Amino acid sequence: MSESVSACVLIIGNEILSGRTQDINLNHIAKTIGAWGIQIQHARVIPDDAQIIVSSINETRHQYDYVFTTGGIGPTHDDITAECVAAAFGVKLIEHPDIAVRIKSRPAPDDVMASRLLMARVPEGARLIDNPTGGPQGFAMENVHVMAGIPRVMQAMLSSLDGELRGGAVVHSYAVEAFTGESQIADALARIQNAHKTVDIGSYPFLREERYGTMLVIRGVDRDLLQAVAKLIMTAIEAAGETPYDLGWQ
Amino acid sequence: MSESVSACVLIIGNEILSGRTQDINLNHIAKTIGAWGIQIQHARVIPDDAQIIVSSINETRHQYDYVFTTGGIGPTHDDITAECVAAAFGVKLIEHPDIAVRIKSRPAPDDVMASRLLMARVPEGARLIDNPTGGPQGFAMENVHVMAGIPRVMQAMLSSLDGELRGGAVVHSYAVEAFTGESQIADALARIQNAHKTVDIGSYPFLREERYGTMLVIRGVDRDLLQAVAKLIMTAIEAAGETPYDLGWQ
Repeated sequence: MSESVSACVLIIGNEILSGRTQDINLNHIAKTIGAWGIQIQHARVIPDDAQIIVSSINETRHQYDYVFTTGGIGPTHDDITAECVAAAFGVKLIEHPDIAVRIKSRPAPDDVMASRLLMARVPEGARLIDNPTGGPQGFAMENVHVMAGIPRVMQAMLSSLDGELRGGAVVHSYAVEAFTGESQIADALARIQNAHKTVDIGSYPFLREERYGTMLVIRGVDRDLLQAVAKLIMTAIEAAGETPYDLGWQ
Repeated sequence: MSESVSACVLIIGNEILSGRTQDINLNHIAKTIGAWGIQIQHARVIPDDAQIIVSSINETRHQYDYVFTTGGIGPTHDDITAECVAAAFGVKLIEHPDIAVRIKSRPAPDDVMASRLLMARVPEGARLIDNPTGGPQGFAMENVHVMAGIPRVMQAMLSSLDGELRGGAVVHSYAVEAFTGESQIADALARIQNAHKTVDIGSYPFLREERYGTMLVIRGVDRDLLQAVAKLIMTAIEAAGETPYDLGWQ
């Protein structure tokens, strides 16, 4: 089997933990890097607290192939991600000339420019992550990729990493559904899962137009095997007296 | 100052990490328990992996006043939360008579009933969390509250905990916004934040109808203080030559 490449996402921001903001970055990152052959194995939502950010980076960066952070790289007092990444790596925070050039290309009064230049600070030795929206760049320190929290900006930064990261085997998904309760097919599913340990069968109940149903999602790197397992599941659904619907590749 | 009560949320499910499903439970839990005086300080998204679920529960349950989990309590092979909570607490998994009664009230063939009864398993000593949708109940083991992953069911279970949990001071939010960049007011904000360390000032840039703006959200337990800080921020916005908009209590 091909190599698996793992990632951890750290979502930094009090506003997510307080419920003020609904995070949509994790989902976007998962889909995007999944297509590049990188699987998120862990995600954390943490507050704007220097000690917690530093320890979260250091706990995760050795454990996963990649760490992606979102949030906390703006120009205000609650934007502390860059200094925390520098502290986590034990290096100085420096003003990166390429980010400073970009910031200075938009004129501003001295005090405003001084605040905007806070966004040019990166840990010494960081590589830049381009920001196709035209704003200040993100950065990467070894395997830790630091991006904005605003979804539109984060998505632009992430897109600029396309082709830059080492991907492994891409995990594909194939889905089947039926208007049946999970319990009706649970035994058969367990047997099929047990017999095919290299795929991951997820069972997700739903309620649609007042009818209960179950969607089965088969994930794995071997497309032929996924289709074979999907056929086994459809046969099991028929054996339970229900009609399987082949939803195909997802 | 009044006591602060903390919570950690563990979102269990491969489908969230793969990007197949957008989590909306964290946000709902944050808003709901926030109103009860309980603040989420940490959240994790973890896979359907027994070892990881057990260690995540044990790492967090001593560190926060409450732990809430979502997902993995259905009747299929990938639903392993109950057995993991039992393992984390070092107790047996038992069939809870009250959940079994509810499950048996809906007739089913023997094999289907056997699968459905898997949802009656709870760690020995667990208390039930009611499920007002009529489905099998959730449960709590000491400070760990185990709920469904389906948002409609999770929300029903959480609502049944209203009045059951020990809340501390409720954190209120007051918001102000202006069509100004963050950098224009960053210095003043930092000064105001520094002078009022018991409130938390969040700065959130936005783009609305092609205009850039910044929303300032002031959070804390003392409502008079929040209003006073909001006034200081509005004055700072005026001093920067912009118009502040008082958004009031959030």
